[in-house]
Amino acid sequence: MPRFRLDIEYDGSLFAGWQHQADQPSVQQAIEQAIEKFSGEAVRLRAAGRTDAGVHASAQVAHVDLAKPWPGDKVRDAVNAHLQAAGAHVAILKAATVRDDFDARFSATGRHYLYRILNRRAPAALEKGKVWWVPKRLDAGAMHEAAKLLLGRHDFTTFRSTQCQANSPVRTLERLDVSRAGDMIEVRASARSFLHNQVRSMVGSLKRVGDGGWTEADLKAALEARDRAACGQVAPPDGLFLIGVDYP
Amino acid sequence: MPRFRLDIEYDGSLFAGWQHQADQPSVQQAIEQAIEKFSGEAVRLRAAGRTDAGVHASAQVAHVDLAKPWPGDKVRDAVNAHLQAAGAHVAILKAATVRDDFDARFSATGRHYLYRILNRRAPAALEKGKVWWVPKRLDAGAMHEAAKLLLGRHDFTTFRSTQCQANSPVRTLERLDVSRAGDMIEVRASARSFLHNQVRSMVGSLKRVGDGGWTEADLKAALEARDRAACGQVAPPDGLFLIGVDYP
Repeated sequence: MPRFRLDIEYDGSLFAGWQHQADQPSVQQAIEQAIEKFSGEAVRLRAAGRTDAGVHASAQVAHVDLAKPWPGDKVRDAVNAHLQAAGAHVAILKAATVRDDFDARFSATGRHYLYRILNRRAPAALEKGKVWWVPKRLDAGAMHEAAKLLLGRHDFTTFRSTQCQANSPVRTLERLDVSRAGDMIEVRASARSFLHNQVRSMVGSLKRVGDGGWTEADLKAALEARDRAACGQVAPPDGLFLIGVDYP
Repeated sequence: MPRFRLDIEYDGSLFAGWQHQADQPSVQQAIEQAIEKFSGEAVRLRAAGRTDAGVHASAQVAHVDLAKPWPGDKVRDAVNAHLQAAGAHVAILKAATVRDDFDARFSATGRHYLYRILNRRAPAALEKGKVWWVPKRLDAGAMHEAAKLLLGRHDFTTFRSTQCQANSPVRTLERLDVSRAGDMIEVRASARSFLHNQVRSMVGSLKRVGDGGWTEADLKAALEARDRAACGQVAPPDGLFLIGVDYP
């Protein structure tokens, strides 16, 4: 059976996350149902990142096996038509046949996330659901400096959900940059893979540095504690976007 | 009574427009109700641009008279709190006392709009409701060149709604730029004032130039016809944002 790679954009606001949930709408299910309407096949997708409820993607990647060697553009357009008809805020940006050994999850060599903080007195209106609104002024420069402490290979137990199913809490963080453009603070995080809630946990702790609640030393102590209880606030899902996945 | 200038951001998707409508939610009403909850006064706002249903604003300006000389920041925060409680996707960015002769509508000397076209095969997901999705490839360069024909002082009868209540169809268009950044085409329009539906009418006609349906000569003929029937498609409200208002 030909294997297809799907590049996917979605607004996570109305979903209980990427992954199938009993009695709740998931991005995975929305796409699987659209594919079934197109090809008549009950399929199962596998994605690079199993984003949580409320988390968005501009460049999720998934793979799926279909019975026929459809042209990629035909798959993209047909699945999008069914997603549109269902009112799902999900779009297939690209569909293309790939080698049988391509696995969207296990072949991925890098994942890139963007976290957006709207840092102003007024709440979000245009960007509601797509940012974390923090009214207190944050020092983005201090956040960026502190973020460097988390770069590299560490035991990230402090920054992972107690629900995390990964065997090891050790990850290598390749990028964690904080920058400000006007009222918007952007945090960009890259790694081969992340633990469950890792980005949101790191952002929540960096926010404490930004508002003066924590020093860099506090952040370092939190990392070294290897204790979930040492984590600052976990940032809400609204501001988080999966923006890229690398493959060899 | 002290007069306040309000700078306002809103997502127009859930509103029947800026202006009061019988039995339909308007941005104006949402803010007036929030002000009433804060100050106990039944007030009436006047805005620089009476945006249509589905049209957004990042920088609408309105004025209102209140009984007490509240500090501006207090007005902003209190009204925002009530807007948030009501679930309205509206935010007061700034509130400040102004001279009694300031009139958000009649003192305005310039209005700036942005229109966004998502030009790609895949429908909008993250930007749904905030762009006009045009799957057919548009030539943004050709649109920009053609747009120059509309600059300056003209009778814009072709490009105004038959509902338009302005006395004269003559306006002076100061800016109409079209540019592309990846899949997004941005049209920026500036004038002292616009006719009803003028920006959406111009964008709909420029789109016909972009997809090859019209030549520059067709656009020129449409303008010179001074006939609403000569207008191309009126672009949907989703892509339109009021992004700035000038005052002396």
